[in-house]
Amino acid sequence: MYPESIQKLIELLSKFPGIGPRQAARFAFFLFKENHGFVEELRTALKELQDRVAVCDVCFRTMEQEEGGQRLCSFCRDARRDRSLIAVVEKESDMSNMEKTGAYHGLYHVLSGVISPLDMDSPKKIRLRELYERAERMLVGGEPCEVILATNSTTEGDTTALYIERILSPLKDTHPSLKITRLGRGLSLGSELEYIDEITIKNALSNRK
Amino acid sequence: MYPESIQKLIELLSKFPGIGPRQAARFAFFLFKENHGFVEELRTALKELQDRVAVCDVCFRTMEQEEGGQRLCSFCRDARRDRSLIAVVEKESDMSNMEKTGAYHGLYHVLSGVISPLDMDSPKKIRLRELYERAERMLVGGEPCEVILATNSTTEGDTTALYIERILSPLKDTHPSLKITRLGRGLSLGSELEYIDEITIKNALSNRK
Amino acid sequence: MYPESIQKLIELLSKFPGIGPRQAARFAFFLFKENHGFVEELRTALKELQDRVAVCDVCFRTMEQEEGGQRLCSFCRDARRDRSLIAVVEKESDMSNMEKTGAYHGLYHVLSGVISPLDMDSPKKIRLRELYERAERMLVGGEPCEVILATNSTTEGDTTALYIERILSPLKDTHPSLKITRLGRGLSLGSELEYIDEITIKNALSNRK
Amino acid sequence: MYPESIQKLIELLSKFPGIGPRQAARFAFFLFKENHGFVEELRTALKELQDRVAVCDVCFRTMEQEEGGQRLCSFCRDARRDRSLIAVVEKESDMSNMEKTGAYHGLYHVLSGVISPLDMDSPKKIRLRELYERAERMLVGGEPCEVILATNSTTEGDTTALYIERILSPLKDTHPSLKITRLGRGLSLGSELEYIDEITIKNALSNRK
Repeated sequence: MYPESIQKLIELLSKFPGIGPRQAARFAFFLFKENHGFVEELRTALKELQDRVAVCDVCFRTMEQEEGGQRLCSFCRDARRDRSLIAVVEKESDMSNMEKTGAYHGLYHVLSGVISPLDMDSPKKIRLRELYERAERMLVGGEPCEVILATNSTTEGDTTALYIERILSPLKDTHPSLKITRLGRGLSLGSELEYIDEITIKNALSNRK
Repeated sequence: MYPESIQKLIELLSKFPGIGPRQAARFAFFLFKENHGFVEELRTALKELQDRVAVCDVCFRTMEQEEGGQRLCSFCRDARRDRSLIAVVEKESDMSNMEKTGAYHGLYHVLSGVISPLDMDSPKKIRLRELYERAERMLVGGEPCEVILATNSTTEGDTTALYIERILSPLKDTHPSLKITRLGRGLSLGSELEYIDEITIKNALSNRK
Repeated sequence: MYPESIQKLIELLSKFPGIGPRQAARFAFFLFKENHGFVEELRTALKELQDRVAVCDVCFRTMEQEEGGQRLCSFCRDARRDRSLIAVVEKESDMSNMEKTGAYHGLYHVLSGVISPLDMDSPKKIRLRELYERAERMLVGGEPCEVILATNSTTEGDTTALYIERILSPLKDTHPSLKITRLGRGLSLGSELEYIDEITIKNALSNRK
Repeated sequence: MYPESIQKLIELLSKFPGIGPRQAARFAFFLFKENHGFVEELRTALKELQDRVAVCDVCFRTMEQEEGGQRLCSFCRDARRDRSLIAVVEKESDMSNMEKTGAYHGLYHVLSGVISPLDMDSPKKIRLRELYERAERMLVGGEPCEVILATNSTTEGDTTALYIERILSPLKDTHPSLKITRLGRGLSLGSELEYIDEITIKNALSNRK
């Protein structure tokens, strides 16, 4: 229907998360109508994404790549952040939402995925071993360490949190100072008792204070 | 447009909560098409609502009216329920949702409304004085007492909870055994960090455990 | 959970179209909280619905019942309406929406239901025979007659329209003045070509003018 | 918050139609996680969009660019299509939806925009003059010509159609064979009389047949 070059572009754009062929077509025609400069900028930005973005060796946040040596992101280098706290998040955008609250001053650990009960290989795909080693390093070094499991309150998020707890618990035996916590459960902003689910009510009751 | 008798019925039905004139019209024509027996049953049920339903003198749940004496609902009479716990709810349907969890075994206090920041008279319209007196009676009698503020996590629910805390705090001075708690705040079931509001994230962080 | 009298009322209210048990409970507590007078008014209105509302003998609109003789609604008696036009509608609320346009000045025929492909008996449940006889009476009497099939543009509405056309077509053989028409098909207000279905586009193309 | 190269990409992606900063961030991280090959393919496709896609000189559909001479798209070259019909569409994706019906065999004219009542310059931004000249050329050449105004049934679509009618009407005086039509208005698939707007009911009544 559309010319081959546009068809090809639609195909690629419809692989973007949450984008179907219809919206991909709208993107393609938007790009065609936009001036030459915009498309050039976009191509350059894609190139720089590949050439210049790396992940932090410690927490796996994205960062601008630098020459030589160990790569450490701005948080991991920032002496004012509380180095004893590690919030484990599923993905970087979760972290950015926690930052916006201004209420968290610790460090992060980006898993880059979750454990899916249906995908036996999923534990290998996310940064679990790196988390274990990072906590161990701290404990052996005599540093205090609280791992905050900040995964989503979904089946996958809960599975992931449970899995991590299981993995880290041996460390707890040898290093009783290790704390493993989870984000509090209860009523979120705007919850009405008439409509919320029973599990949330149970959590809200047992976490009352 | 419609005959007067139907128009009058539509008018009354459109006062039902959440019902506009269009759905009220649908109700009216549904009732007209239903057989005679259904409408008679409905009229009888409305009569019995007026003649036979009362509220418990202690917790203000609805109950079947009985002859003579003090009116006590089945919960308030039930020796197996934990009499030291009073969950303060905005309305009876909130209570029924807590019951479904099977996790709560105390008593209730139905406020029958909330305090609205915009309605100066709203504190007088809900059962606050009765709550104060109920708690005082228990404390004076030497009974333990925890008041659980189980209002919604909305502006009005929070205002109401704050107001109740302020009212009950003098009792706390004289009876340090009085506990006033609130339902826990944090991630509700299904919450995703990428989408939830900052206040909920803050609550989830400070209530982590 | 709730007292028996409230439970019974909830049960009846949850038979209202589109109403589940939760909203029915909200209705019941709303009625309990409303003053005595409102519930009495509602009971009276329900009584009058039964005692005073009838349907027109000709078009089956609802009307206030009158003593003796043939029942004729205000439209069927109104000499200024175009008596040669009969708009066949599924239900009375469809009719009221057509009236609001101010663009139709003919009469109506309320089927009081549709023909469902899954319910073999549905043709007997709606006023088809009455429509046939009404059209025949007019034609035999030498009156002009256009039957406008104003059913919904849904599977059931289309099935019903097709069925009526089949039933009336023998009349057309003997009375060529009989016209049978259907509401126009095409773009409805706000339709965007990018989103609408193919059948609507086809209709819009073949009905272009 | 995010590294500069990612921030820049998010900024560009959030200019895509219907995309806010949050979804743009999701796109950016998706692209970062995808393998190198995918981003390369996307960059190539963007390049080819610029280098190889042109628009047809006659109907302004996009087409693969060719060397030399007049550019004619596959439809404009296709002898089997009815050359007397020109469907004027707002944008190319509208056209592709009409093609899917298989009910249209004429040619198109892509306006590449609409006339907005709020933008005085909008008539100059779309291909109106080209439409006039195309129709005139056909009529002078003795060819039959029907211009089908296939704009959306929205305020802007209707304004655009009215404007085009006004522009083409002088041609009609000199060439009475010119037909200007609009897509039919009425019930679209699934319309229910109880819910649709009055204008659609009016159109459906006056277009009944």
